[in-house]
Amino acid sequence: MSVKVIKVGEDILSANEDKAGANKARLDKGAVFTVNIMASPGAGKTSLIMNTINNLKDKMRIGVIEGDVASSVDADKINALGIPVIQINTAGGCHLDANMVEYALNGLPLDAIDLLFIENVGNLICPNAFVLGEDRRVMIASTPEGDDKPLKYPAMFADSDVVVLNKTDLTPHLDFDDAAFRQTVTGLNPDVVIFPVSCKTGAGLDDWYAWLTAAVRGKKGG
Amino acid sequence: MSVKVIKVGEDILSANEDKAGANKARLDKGAVFTVNIMASPGAGKTSLIMNTINNLKDKMRIGVIEGDVASSVDADKINALGIPVIQINTAGGCHLDANMVEYALNGLPLDAIDLLFIENVGNLICPNAFVLGEDRRVMIASTPEGDDKPLKYPAMFADSDVVVLNKTDLTPHLDFDDAAFRQTVTGLNPDVVIFPVSCKTGAGLDDWYAWLTAAVRGKKGG
Repeated sequence: MSVKVIKVGEDILSANEDKAGANKARLDKGAVFTVNIMASPGAGKTSLIMNTINNLKDKMRIGVIEGDVASSVDADKINALGIPVIQINTAGGCHLDANMVEYALNGLPLDAIDLLFIENVGNLICPNAFVLGEDRRVMIASTPEGDDKPLKYPAMFADSDVVVLNKTDLTPHLDFDDAAFRQTVTGLNPDVVIFPVSCKTGAGLDDWYAWLTAAVRGKKGG
Repeated sequence: MSVKVIKVGEDILSANEDKAGANKARLDKGAVFTVNIMASPGAGKTSLIMNTINNLKDKMRIGVIEGDVASSVDADKINALGIPVIQINTAGGCHLDANMVEYALNGLPLDAIDLLFIENVGNLICPNAFVLGEDRRVMIASTPEGDDKPLKYPAMFADSDVVVLNKTDLTPHLDFDDAAFRQTVTGLNPDVVIFPVSCKTGAGLDDWYAWLTAAVRGKKGG
């Protein structure tokens, strides 16, 4: 009789992928376009989501799942905008997984949501390994973090569909080499779409809204 | 016969603490004052280390262990300053552990080092759980990350001896509430020392250098 070997890392990721597939099937059935938002702490995940809600809420129905190690400060902000939101506290965990998202989906009115944001835990490393059931992965980089971040955290830049480069309003006060940043990102990920934006001034956000609107309409089949 | 239960999380942390204790004994024997530097990606870990090297290298002998998921860009910068440096690539791992640091110590001239910086992987969550053998834990927060980071990533703020608040030169361009930040940090950690600095302009760094110089002298017993 052969010995059963439990490969913890592989088994966890494989079980997560199965669960993510089930989440995806459920979201596909309701034609809920779902975006997994990943970034460093403080890059602007909540700011991007709140700007997007304010701009698009009259055109589509939006829901949010907030992931944080602790607190509900982000979910409170979203809730104040009148948007359905569920907070997941990971209690020290450094990423969301598909199981946590399944619980959150159970608490959301999915038949009344066209666009679902899942705001991941602030971390450039671990969230990348855990699919959640999303249609697209969007990562936010911010100019004060420096243009060398794609070199040092390559996996998330390589695996994201979209890179939003936030805080461009600060660029005049920084040594941020935009050309070097773009060259490294497209070297890792030739198909990536990059949106330079400022969530503070609103610069560049119209292109992001247009991309998102087209993607939501595409999933609705219209 | 009772069943042996392997509690993976606890056993890993306990084995790490044993190894960290051995690292600490080795560093104590050589009176090497050791600082574990933790922060988000792009908060300024390498900048703080490089500023400190340039300011203190004629007064003490400095060494560096660089931790990154990938690349050696930071170690290359330190090496260019003529400082002994070892790069650890974690190959996707989101934190350093005491085993990795043991390997790095084997490659450093410990009898010719008074101050050792260990630059952890950029991550506000996982590095906090893994002691390495350090004398002090220093975390860097940066103003563009926002004043709410201690609320959302409380453990690292609670467990650090020092919080360096970097990029104060950008504060005029941000909505950063310094009083709220300090109140949350000291609420989590009443004994913490906070140094507001700008690694770009040099503002505030003299207080950090003075603290570090006193600590290194203290460990040398002089």
